[in-house]
Amino acid sequence: MAQDRPRTAAKGSARGTYAVGDARRQKILDTAVEHFALWGFHASSLARIAAACGITQGGLLHHFRSKEDLLLSVLAQSEQHDVERLFAEPPESVAAHFATVVALAEDNERRPGLVRMFHTLVGEAANPGHPAHAYFRQRYARVLDHTVELLQAGVARGELRPGTDCEAAGREILAVMDGLQIQWVLAPASVDMPARLRGFLDRLLRDLSPA
Amino acid sequence: MAQDRPRTAAKGSARGTYAVGDARRQKILDTAVEHFALWGFHASSLARIAAACGITQGGLLHHFRSKEDLLLSVLAQSEQHDVERLFAEPPESVAAHFATVVALAEDNERRPGLVRMFHTLVGEAANPGHPAHAYFRQRYARVLDHTVELLQAGVARGELRPGTDCEAAGREILAVMDGLQIQWVLAPASVDMPARLRGFLDRLLRDLSPA
Repeated sequence: MAQDRPRTAAKGSARGTYAVGDARRQKILDTAVEHFALWGFHASSLARIAAACGITQGGLLHHFRSKEDLLLSVLAQSEQHDVERLFAEPPESVAAHFATVVALAEDNERRPGLVRMFHTLVGEAANPGHPAHAYFRQRYARVLDHTVELLQAGVARGELRPGTDCEAAGREILAVMDGLQIQWVLAPASVDMPARLRGFLDRLLRDLSPA
Repeated sequence: MAQDRPRTAAKGSARGTYAVGDARRQKILDTAVEHFALWGFHASSLARIAAACGITQGGLLHHFRSKEDLLLSVLAQSEQHDVERLFAEPPESVAAHFATVVALAEDNERRPGLVRMFHTLVGEAANPGHPAHAYFRQRYARVLDHTVELLQAGVARGELRPGTDCEAAGREILAVMDGLQIQWVLAPASVDMPARLRGFLDRLLRDLSPA
């Protein structure tokens, strides 16, 4: 009797194959995060990533065309979370945006693997020949532009002083986020990343508020 | 006649051999900076570094015991410059220390290869199994402790408000330095690193000064 019925309801159906493919694709992405975090792009190997997923390299190449393709797919997925947090609804105020930035730091504390991968790859990618160089340049430009726009909207609403150097403030915010992450990934127990970031942003907001 | 006299004055003398050895050792260190910056530790190879220096791997191993030894030697030398800048004379004031920090950022603009290497390696080294993990943890702790001491001295001299959270301020300063460097190595033409750092430090000093 067990032989006669399909082993799972979805088995063999188009939707079932699809779901299996999705799960395998996600497993490859999750495994790639670990490998890129530990070894960087150059020393990571598709063969080892495939082996860690229990599939052949040919099986992996069915989902991702090349190591470059896998790298850029991992980065795109890792950014999705930040985008949903930061770019979703326009915040009501600069203070609300800053609270979102702190919430993102809290999220990052719960995903150290992604934070580690980010810093391994962004360091390598300073080299213009790196396959993620253009990606990271564009990602930083996107986040900076978005931050500058939100600060400019704050100036327009009278929350921030007229003449605020929004680019300088935006670059500082990004820098403090990155720099605190480096301190935290090196020695997680030694620094309360969201609290330090909140302290910085509270002071920045006071400094930039109209007298 | 040319055959009879030594080809250089130092040739064959103990000092001459020494100088040749020093120059070769320095060439290996400089080449290793480039390789570690581009490839990271794991994907760099002693054979390729030796080849780029025009020597054999055996010749390289005469100067450095292993790839780990070469890595730690490169990092120790790269830190020397910062140490001389930052740890030399105790600064007269917090403002003088901040000026030194900005001067260091100006130095770093003139040595992009070292800055790139730093960020490639510090990213990888978040992994506790990395051969430079302990080194970077200790380096950050040293620089933070030193910064906190200088800020505390500023509080004691009345330059900074009593009750200043010197660790928070120290971590912010390190974070802004690192974060601006990441923005700069990705897109050097887009950010004036020393000017941005000066802007941040000027504001921090105003915020921490007694009312």
